This record gives sequence, C-alpha cells and structure tokens, in this order.
Amino acid sequence: MADINTQVLLASRPKDGIAPDNFRTVTTPLPTAGSGEVLVRNVWLSIDPYMRGRMSDAKSYVPAAALDHPMVGQTVGEVVVSNDRRFAPGDMVLTQLGWQHYGVARGSELTKVDASRVPASYYLGVLGMPGVTAWFGLTEIGQPKPGETLVVSAASGAVGSVVGQLGKLAGCRVVGIAGGAQKCRHVVDELGFDACVDHRAGRLLDDLRAACPAGVDVDFENVGGAVLDAVLAVMNVRSRIVICGLIAEYDAATAYGYTRMRSVLVNRIRMQGMIVFDWKDRYPEALARLIPLVAGGKIRYRESVVDGLENAPNALMDVLRGKNFGKQLVRIA
Amino acid sequence: MADINTQVLLASRPKDGIAPDNFRTVTTPLPTAGSGEVLVRNVWLSIDPYMRGRMSDAKSYVPAAALDHPMVGQTVGEVVVSNDRRFAPGDMVLTQLGWQHYGVARGSELTKVDASRVPASYYLGVLGMPGVTAWFGLTEIGQPKPGETLVVSAASGAVGSVVGQLGKLAGCRVVGIAGGAQKCRHVVDELGFDACVDHRAGRLLDDLRAACPAGVDVDFENVGGAVLDAVLAVMNVRSRIVICGLIAEYDAATAYGYTRMRSVLVNRIRMQGMIVFDWKDRYPEALARLIPLVAGGKIRYRESVVDGLENAPNALMDVLRGKNFGKQLVRIA
Repeated sequence: MADINTQVLLASRPKDGIAPDNFRTVTTPLPTAGSGEVLVRNVWLSIDPYMRGRMSDAKSYVPAAALDHPMVGQTVGEVVVSNDRRFAPGDMVLTQLGWQHYGVARGSELTKVDASRVPASYYLGVLGMPGVTAWFGLTEIGQPKPGETLVVSAASGAVGSVVGQLGKLAGCRVVGIAGGAQKCRHVVDELGFDACVDHRAGRLLDDLRAACPAGVDVDFENVGGAVLDAVLAVMNVRSRIVICGLIAEYDAATAYGYTRMRSVLVNRIRMQGMIVFDWKDRYPEALARLIPLVAGGKIRYRESVVDGLENAPNALMDVLRGKNFGKQLVRIA
Repeated sequence: MADINTQVLLASRPKDGIAPDNFRTVTTPLPTAGSGEVLVRNVWLSIDPYMRGRMSDAKSYVPAAALDHPMVGQTVGEVVVSNDRRFAPGDMVLTQLGWQHYGVARGSELTKVDASRVPASYYLGVLGMPGVTAWFGLTEIGQPKPGETLVVSAASGAVGSVVGQLGKLAGCRVVGIAGGAQKCRHVVDELGFDACVDHRAGRLLDDLRAACPAGVDVDFENVGGAVLDAVLAVMNVRSRIVICGLIAEYDAATAYGYTRMRSVLVNRIRMQGMIVFDWKDRYPEALARLIPLVAGGKIRYRESVVDGLENAPNALMDVLRGKNFGKQLVRIA
C-alpha cells in the first residue's frame, strides 16, 4: 500500500462545455480511518452522464459538486482498514468516494457487494444505479404491456441496454435508438432488440416510423433533444414517456427547443421525469429481480473499461459525446 | 317557424391561420324529422378553442370537420318536432348539431337539460364540456392538495375560471395567468384567485416567481407556448402539469420550441395530456359535484355573448386570439 493518495478534483465549472481543464490531479497524504470509519482502496470508478450536471451549480436533483474537492462518483473498492465491525479487510464495497485512489467513509455510507455470482464491477452498472434506474423507470412509469412497442434511446448504454432487455422479457416489441451502425448491430444481435435506429444516419423520423409500424406505446428517454422530438411524432394514444436522461442537452450551450408538445395533448401522453433516488427504499426489490436475470444470462451486459484514474475526465467527455459503448468504467487499481 | 334553414359551412381549411373565407353561409330547406328523429331549433352555439383543430385535417382526437358541411359544435336548443317518445316540443336539449339554425338528430344523440336551477346556456360551459374538463383534469391529473400552489392559464376562460375556483375550494393558493389587466382584475376580484399574472405585460417569468413564492405544484395548462415554457421554470419537485389546451399553438404557422424540458427531469414532473372524452362515462359524477356549486354561488361564471349565427366565425377568431372574456357563446335564436 502506497502512503500517498491521488485525487482528481473539480477545478472549475464548465462554461460552454466540459473541458479537460475543469479537472486537476493532485497527490495528498493517505487518509486514516477514525472511529467507526473504513479506509477503502477504490478499484472501479463509475462514469455516468449525471456527473455533468453535478459539475454545474444550476438547480438539479442534488447540490453541485464542490470545487477543489474530489469529483463525485460511485466506486467499488476493497476495504483496507476497518473500524466498523460490519466490514473486514478484503470486503468489496460500493462507495460514494469519488475520483480518488483511496478514501475514508463511515460504515453507514458503504454497501457490501457479493462478487461470488457476478463481477464486483456490475454493482456500478446492471446491478447498480443504472440497472435499478432501468427497473423502476420501466416498471413504475413506463408500465409496458405485452404486445406494446417500447422505444429506448441510448440503447447500448448502461441504462438503455437493461431497459430494452426487460422490455423483451415483458413481451414488448423493442426498438432501440443508438449512435452509429456498430452500436445498432450490438443492440439487435447481442441484446436481442427487435430493431435499432441509428440517429446519426440523418433520417431519424422516417427510420423510426419504419421500425415502429404500430406506433410507440412507451418511450424510455435517455437522450432528449432531436431524438425525443422525433419520438414525440410517433407516440400512440395513452402512451408513456419516461424522462430518465437528456444527455443531448447536458453539455450544450443553448437549450433545445422541443416542437411537438402538441403530441402530448392530442395523444394524452403521460410524460414523467425520474431519478432513481426516489425509490431508494426499494433498491433491494429491484436487485432481487435483476440478479438472477443477470447471473442466469437472461440480461446481457457490456462494459467499456478505461485504465487509470488520470483518464477519468476523458472517459466522462466521451460518455457525454456518445463515444462509449456500454457501461463506462475506469479501472483505478 | 320559418321554412328555411341557415347554415355556416366549413368552406376551406386554414392555410397559415384561420380567416373569414374559411366559412360560407348558405340557406337550405328546413330539414324534417324522420322516424326516431327530433327537429331542434338551436338557441345557443358554443364557441371553443378545440374547433380550430377540427378545421384542419392533421391527426387529432377526432376526425376533421367535413368541408361543405355545417361547422361542428355543441348547441343548446329547443325541441320543435319529436318522433322520439323521450322528447317533447319545448324541451331544452344539448346537441352536436353545429353551426346552423335548425337540425335533425336521433334521440340518442341528444341530452335533455334542466334549466330550472341554472340557465340552459350553462350546459355549454360551466356545466358542459368546459366545466367537466376542469373537474376531471384537476382532480384526476392535477391532484391538488391543501396548501399547494396551483397555476391556471387562460384563467378567465371557460375552463380556467372553473379550475381556479375548484382549486380554491380544495385549499390551494391559486394563481391565474391571463391576457390583460382587465381579465386579471376579474380573476382576482370576481373569481377569488389569490393572484393573477398578465402574460402580456412583458415580464411573465419574474411576475410568476413573485406570485408563486413557494413554487408551483400543479399547472393547469390551457395556453402553451411561451406561457408554458415560463411555468416550467417555476415548477416544484414532484409537481404535475395538466396539458388541457395549447391555444397559443393552434393557429400559429410554426410550432413553438419549448426550452425547459430539463425541468421535467430534474423536478420529476408528471405532465399529462387530456381530453374530456376520456371520462365520458363519468360525466354525471362531475355534474353532480358542479351543479350544486354553481347553483349555490360557490362557483362564479361569466359568459360572453355574440348575437347572430353569421357572427360565429368572428367569435371563433376572437377566442383564438384571446379577445373573448369568459365562456364564448353565439345566440342563434
């Protein structure tokens, strides 16, 4: 164990868009675990679109990340020193310790993860916030019924890939939207969606209409902007839109202007925003459903791994530009 | 009884916006009531924003109005000849006979109205589609709770005026949005809203913030466009938006671009479109609640009356431009 720590701090808030100089890497002394505290060596850092929001100080779900502190984020790490009887050295834990090699947390802030059936990193993705987001957003808001058509944007991403596979298990026709032919092939060939539309091909609305001959009953929206505006044109009467993410807007200098609000009226659409924290008391319920599906191969899951904490800023920028492919992780140790 | 009928036909569909030459007045022979049919002399014609949608052939709730036929609309009229034992000459009935002096309908298409406690014309407004729209939209979708803040646009209109008064009865702080100082005074002084914001005063967002110091929990949206976009900026976490009408868009050449979708995500807003027909089996339930409130003076109601069927086109154009004040009616006979 080294006696120094490395951290990536939030150095400044983005002006027009996120840039490398919004981050700064520093070395600090290794922290020590006080009474009731646990020292964790981070192994996996999760990279997620929501992080862009935390970098700004506009009103959002939660307070902005603090300047000159380690950038916020979930990790999976290994317990090194424990002053909490619930944890022992070697335990793998889910943490909120953010972008750093080591961190100290109170035991109550950690969740032990069971890496015997699935890799520990899965608790940052399909069995973590993204998977639980997919589960509650789809079942509680989307409410798909057998035979209905479900559209999922960012279909190859950490949330979208799970949503689409859950939709297939629920008996839906599932149509993905993804950026690029390679992602679309993966979504159909590997994840089992019925079709996938490439939103970069320049004919999104026509392609959506062709892929959804019976219209759309549920849209699980992760992208927003021109993607959501096109989907609004093909929604059915009494359809549902889960607003889970608007990644197209997060790093844009000007807000997108949505032109099809009238579809909400004419089709009596129910559109609802969500954040997974709203179900935080019910996470175990989602995991009890997801773990056997993942362990049994009913839900397939792809990770995209970058090595080295110093590459975390670029990994986040890639996620915001749709360059990642599957759940984005940084391997820290 | 004259032996000729006068009708206002839909002569053409609007191009950029509604115009007088979209209508044509004709005289025809008086229709005769066949077996099971009833001849009705229309007395009151209802003028409503939804009529603009029926004039176009874009996809909407219901098929477009047919060219060269009487323009569609609800009326209250008097039975002249009845070949249906449920109706007798002199009965007042609610009809779908549209823009004409006389019309023939099957008995099953008519609803007898009780004009003993309230004027017959009220069944086109506060006790008709607008009132029932207000009731179900607010109670089923808006779901206001005591102490919450309710915003209502087109607050002096047929729907908005009822929504706001129901909101006060439900214990809400109620803030109207209306066009012009005169309407705003009426909304506060006569209808009892807590405040009213004039969207023509040029500082809508600032005025909304001042009138809603605790934010907005329910928005009952009748206007859309820049009004809805401003309201989105002041919505609270877990708030609800009832999309009842988007009158600002109906007659516009280009669609409005809504810039605050992100508020739906961040605040987990539930936004839902509605059309009163979705509750058509439950109209009596709404009327059972509304009639005593209206008859007892708990809900105040204002009508704006134009005389003469030939003035119906101008009355509709005025409604679409917000020039009416209260429920717009045409007195036909």
